[in-house]
Amino acid sequence: MAGNSFGNLFQLTSFGESHGKAIGGIIDGCPAGLNIDLDFIQNELSRRRPGQSSITTQRQEEDKVEFLSGIFDGKTLGTSIGFIIQNKDAHSADYDLLKDSYRPSHADYTYEKKFGIRDYRGGGRSSARETACRIVAGALAKLILKQHNIQIHAFVKQVGEVKLDKNFDALDLSKTEQNAVRCPDEQTAQQMLDYIEKIKAEGDTVGGIIQCVILNSPVGLGEPVFDKLNAVLGHAMLSINAVKGFEIGSGFNSVAHKGSSLNDLFTASTTNAKLGTKTNNSGGIQGGISNGMPIYFNVAFKPVATIMQAQQTVNNLGDTVTLAAKGRHDPCVLPRAVPIVESMAAMVMADFYLLSLGNKMS
Amino acid sequence: MAGNSFGNLFQLTSFGESHGKAIGGIIDGCPAGLNIDLDFIQNELSRRRPGQSSITTQRQEEDKVEFLSGIFDGKTLGTSIGFIIQNKDAHSADYDLLKDSYRPSHADYTYEKKFGIRDYRGGGRSSARETACRIVAGALAKLILKQHNIQIHAFVKQVGEVKLDKNFDALDLSKTEQNAVRCPDEQTAQQMLDYIEKIKAEGDTVGGIIQCVILNSPVGLGEPVFDKLNAVLGHAMLSINAVKGFEIGSGFNSVAHKGSSLNDLFTASTTNAKLGTKTNNSGGIQGGISNGMPIYFNVAFKPVATIMQAQQTVNNLGDTVTLAAKGRHDPCVLPRAVPIVESMAAMVMADFYLLSLGNKMS
Amino acid sequence: MAGNSFGNLFQLTSFGESHGKAIGGIIDGCPAGLNIDLDFIQNELSRRRPGQSSITTQRQEEDKVEFLSGIFDGKTLGTSIGFIIQNKDAHSADYDLLKDSYRPSHADYTYEKKFGIRDYRGGGRSSARETACRIVAGALAKLILKQHNIQIHAFVKQVGEVKLDKNFDALDLSKTEQNAVRCPDEQTAQQMLDYIEKIKAEGDTVGGIIQCVILNSPVGLGEPVFDKLNAVLGHAMLSINAVKGFEIGSGFNSVAHKGSSLNDLFTASTTNAKLGTKTNNSGGIQGGISNGMPIYFNVAFKPVATIMQAQQTVNNLGDTVTLAAKGRHDPCVLPRAVPIVESMAAMVMADFYLLSLGNKMS
Amino acid sequence: MAGNSFGNLFQLTSFGESHGKAIGGIIDGCPAGLNIDLDFIQNELSRRRPGQSSITTQRQEEDKVEFLSGIFDGKTLGTSIGFIIQNKDAHSADYDLLKDSYRPSHADYTYEKKFGIRDYRGGGRSSARETACRIVAGALAKLILKQHNIQIHAFVKQVGEVKLDKNFDALDLSKTEQNAVRCPDEQTAQQMLDYIEKIKAEGDTVGGIIQCVILNSPVGLGEPVFDKLNAVLGHAMLSINAVKGFEIGSGFNSVAHKGSSLNDLFTASTTNAKLGTKTNNSGGIQGGISNGMPIYFNVAFKPVATIMQAQQTVNNLGDTVTLAAKGRHDPCVLPRAVPIVESMAAMVMADFYLLSLGNKMS
Repeated sequence: MAGNSFGNLFQLTSFGESHGKAIGGIIDGCPAGLNIDLDFIQNELSRRRPGQSSITTQRQEEDKVEFLSGIFDGKTLGTSIGFIIQNKDAHSADYDLLKDSYRPSHADYTYEKKFGIRDYRGGGRSSARETACRIVAGALAKLILKQHNIQIHAFVKQVGEVKLDKNFDALDLSKTEQNAVRCPDEQTAQQMLDYIEKIKAEGDTVGGIIQCVILNSPVGLGEPVFDKLNAVLGHAMLSINAVKGFEIGSGFNSVAHKGSSLNDLFTASTTNAKLGTKTNNSGGIQGGISNGMPIYFNVAFKPVATIMQAQQTVNNLGDTVTLAAKGRHDPCVLPRAVPIVESMAAMVMADFYLLSLGNKMS
Repeated sequence: MAGNSFGNLFQLTSFGESHGKAIGGIIDGCPAGLNIDLDFIQNELSRRRPGQSSITTQRQEEDKVEFLSGIFDGKTLGTSIGFIIQNKDAHSADYDLLKDSYRPSHADYTYEKKFGIRDYRGGGRSSARETACRIVAGALAKLILKQHNIQIHAFVKQVGEVKLDKNFDALDLSKTEQNAVRCPDEQTAQQMLDYIEKIKAEGDTVGGIIQCVILNSPVGLGEPVFDKLNAVLGHAMLSINAVKGFEIGSGFNSVAHKGSSLNDLFTASTTNAKLGTKTNNSGGIQGGISNGMPIYFNVAFKPVATIMQAQQTVNNLGDTVTLAAKGRHDPCVLPRAVPIVESMAAMVMADFYLLSLGNKMS
Repeated sequence: MAGNSFGNLFQLTSFGESHGKAIGGIIDGCPAGLNIDLDFIQNELSRRRPGQSSITTQRQEEDKVEFLSGIFDGKTLGTSIGFIIQNKDAHSADYDLLKDSYRPSHADYTYEKKFGIRDYRGGGRSSARETACRIVAGALAKLILKQHNIQIHAFVKQVGEVKLDKNFDALDLSKTEQNAVRCPDEQTAQQMLDYIEKIKAEGDTVGGIIQCVILNSPVGLGEPVFDKLNAVLGHAMLSINAVKGFEIGSGFNSVAHKGSSLNDLFTASTTNAKLGTKTNNSGGIQGGISNGMPIYFNVAFKPVATIMQAQQTVNNLGDTVTLAAKGRHDPCVLPRAVPIVESMAAMVMADFYLLSLGNKMS
Repeated sequence: MAGNSFGNLFQLTSFGESHGKAIGGIIDGCPAGLNIDLDFIQNELSRRRPGQSSITTQRQEEDKVEFLSGIFDGKTLGTSIGFIIQNKDAHSADYDLLKDSYRPSHADYTYEKKFGIRDYRGGGRSSARETACRIVAGALAKLILKQHNIQIHAFVKQVGEVKLDKNFDALDLSKTEQNAVRCPDEQTAQQMLDYIEKIKAEGDTVGGIIQCVILNSPVGLGEPVFDKLNAVLGHAMLSINAVKGFEIGSGFNSVAHKGSSLNDLFTASTTNAKLGTKTNNSGGIQGGISNGMPIYFNVAFKPVATIMQAQQTVNNLGDTVTLAAKGRHDPCVLPRAVPIVESMAAMVMADFYLLSLGNKMS
């Protein structure tokens, strides 16, 4: 109820403040007998790790996950999987000035009013540091999905006004990891990189769009009415820090189309296998349930609120004060958010996969 | 788990197929002692009712709600509130031809594959007819919120390419109900109406955007991490039929801004009351928690999939067939979706309000 | 959260006051394609129906269930199943005197203090009338379990001081339905019947014990730690009106044994099939998980609180008043509670069966 | 869903195998601003700690809790509270022989069949070692309840056939901690101690009964129908290892009474304060909701399954083998289970307290 859990059958509950001793979580409902590929999990964490390139925050966190339970002889036991990640490079003194002041467009004010108390160091629980826990759970979810050949690929589609104007099926998604921006198109990636460097030099920040594509989904995932696959994917994405928008398939562009041009016509199939559609404006989901076509959606991120420029704000006495930013921050979170988007998508898909096992009488 | 429930403390569980005997639901967790204004509830249903104007489906449903429990002497008892709405004007014969065929961009195929069986009459459970139950629960939620002066106003902001290019604070939202389109700007409303009539004459359909504004929210609603207020609002909206996108505050437009221009600076307050911000790109939510400013978001609807034109599709044998549409359908769902958007928003707000009661030690 | 739902994947949410228009519920998560045997369901309701014999209340309710959704062509659709049961023979005037007074050992006082309002007619929501809804959901659960050969048999083991001193495996459980008391031993049944008639003549009431036996459970149902099979069965039983105790397997008798005499030794098996144990003090559950042996437990019911004798009590002004009972009541609820116990057990087993589908990687 | 979480608003999710690196958990929904008394929490853990006296297992675990999040400046933040307890004195080699064999009346067989894999060292997840996490959450719950003057006292009422035949209100419950058995009656405590020492010398084990008393509960805790206070207390207790029975108030003894003798008559009150009853057979709960009288219940524990005598059993090949017990075990778990019973009761009460905040319109 208190917002620290995600998922039904495959569920992550997480904890941790940015500058506390550690962050961590419990993954519950992971089926027994899953082979745990620790290198894969650690590599996923490294994709999100601060300090990974010149365009990310320079906070140096190794982000090494330590599993405390639920795994035996390299396999999951079917019991709850506890894990922690130490906070090693927190510079809490950078935040002393924020103790009494509310940073603009941050959660300082809302947390203090909601709880009557807040951990002002590094944003406390509201920091995106907690997303490292999502990566751990997402990596396990990916290992489950891999057994069913379900693949999840996210990439940076837009940074500020630099757009990648190609459909995902015209891209080689295996190239996403080949540059610091995580854009699979080399030329656009370079433009994005240049743009971020320029913004960083200005002490400013910039947002963008991540697209996520899910391939080989079975038909039938998602639940009618309130837990449509697109609704839960939207919930998952909108729970990520700095996300302001979500659209599935043709999304906001659907508005300008007529039904006659937007409908996805089925293509005849000579086999018993699943049907396809000529177009895929539905984004692989119809009536809230996967139809076997690629699932794709866009996630809009605002610029990071912390900028390296002086800003006027108000303290807890109601007085106007000027904040000069300290701390180490990202000029653009998009590159590090790519594995977070994938992780949340993987958790949703693994959960719905498990839920689907009881759909029909066998 | 099976997607027919929404909410934590204030929870709706619903049932019903489009052409079954009745639809209905159970509202659980409504506080005791709430005065039930039956006229208000029925009026809310009438705002969503089919057959209400020339631009909606001509299916004639009275949509009269019958409460079966949980209310005594005009007040809620604190026990579960059961209700039903009869289906009276279903023309199931119109759907006989669809028994074996999958309508494009509908849920026929996905339901059949998921469950191995489907009620093909009027779309069964996948029909938007179920949203009438959301209206009932939403109306109760509004009655709770009214006690705390929280107001919810949705309106049609765009139909096809006809846009209302004004901020909500420049509009008189009380005018929304004065025209069949539910757009508070009279002139734009007329343009939308003309456009829908034209599309209807073509046997086609059109989508659009609904904006929803929540006024007077207390500070502190929403939960950290996974159940951010924006994430749950997004979930709620994306669970509505035909919704393809959701954005909060500056939404997708945030992408093109820099942090320095997008941040909402606090304004000094000489009283103990809540702080305000100069701009409201955050859309009233910071760190997933309401900050007391107006909450606003956009919801994108695709055109209705059922068009009055012949379409090629595939049947359950894999053969290509041509569908000539029958039944009575909306050329544009936006006008009827306005109260649905409000209802889902109201349920989310009432739920988070109740959850907030235990935030702090008293 | 508000206590009107039971189950995880297979879930009943119910509504209804004793003298309201109707009671009913929604069964969610029932797998699609289950054949609905309406006669079986109605027969289960008849086993609980008031007015079925001389030793039950004479309130005449037909208790005919009307399904409103989720069933098509005689099979479940996989969507939520809504149902109602009309209240036809409520004599609300019998309760006018109770409007301001609190009946001893009833829920009048606690409901009024909790909610600030109560429906005093027939006990409102606190009446055992709601258990008819449990029968409907339990009947569906039994139909699921039947596909897996899992059987559930409850019977009356004790009424007042009249005990059936035989192990369940020495009884012919098919005889349970052959007498009004639902005790499978004819001779003991007659003694119980005589005893209840005598108590009834005194205007008094009596309690007893129901034993429930679950045969052919697969190994592996139940979850570690908090949702042990015995814990959830206990929760289920203790949620039934008038239940004061629950014990599994050797239960309270375990206390007087030493470990060396209570342990259930495994018996060697020459096949790959499941192991058995020489004794079954565990009651078919070890570590919270079914071991394939018969599951059995006892449920203790107190005498019905409503007696046909004058009782002193207190009204809502704090004054002492004397209540002369009116209304029609059971001298002993045990016979009618047998199908309720079975229904709750069936719901638990069906839910854990569905949960078990995702226990292991396939 | 997978059984590692307990509670609705105040919720514990736990992890950990007996011989893994650590056990731990996440407490979610604890209100912000609660003063954390670390000494109190650690003292509660010490009451459950192994090696605390001659009649408990000699495994030496310091059981020092380390909080990792959710606490700042000695107060709760309102965010999730992560904690771990190291496993320091595990002797896993003692369990090598059990790798392939199923100990009688343990969870070895059921876990292996359910999950296809098990951690055989010290019982893995099925070990009562996990209950240390319940103590941590229970201690926090007690701190919440203390603010509302709600007190929870458990004590040993019976060991084998040695019974404490006094009502709780005739006992000085503050004496419970004055002896190793945790029985508040000195003389009976000595008899119990002698009995346990004798059983221990035989290499055998013995069970018993713990009674728990909750004083000063407000009227109105517990939910109608499925989540009656007694049902959730029963669930909580039956989830503790080795528990075989639960009874509330007059419990199984109710069976032998008539309604006329068991009903609790209200006593007139000249003030607006809550009413009392002459007797308290209801155990402080009527219709599933607390009535303000003392809540009391009994919990039956079977003898520990691990005995220091050779036992015949079966291995995973189906062969008969003889087990000679190793490891360090309790001859009687009752003394250490007293704080576990209290902790589970405290969690239930804190959860229902928080749930009650939204019962009525304010």
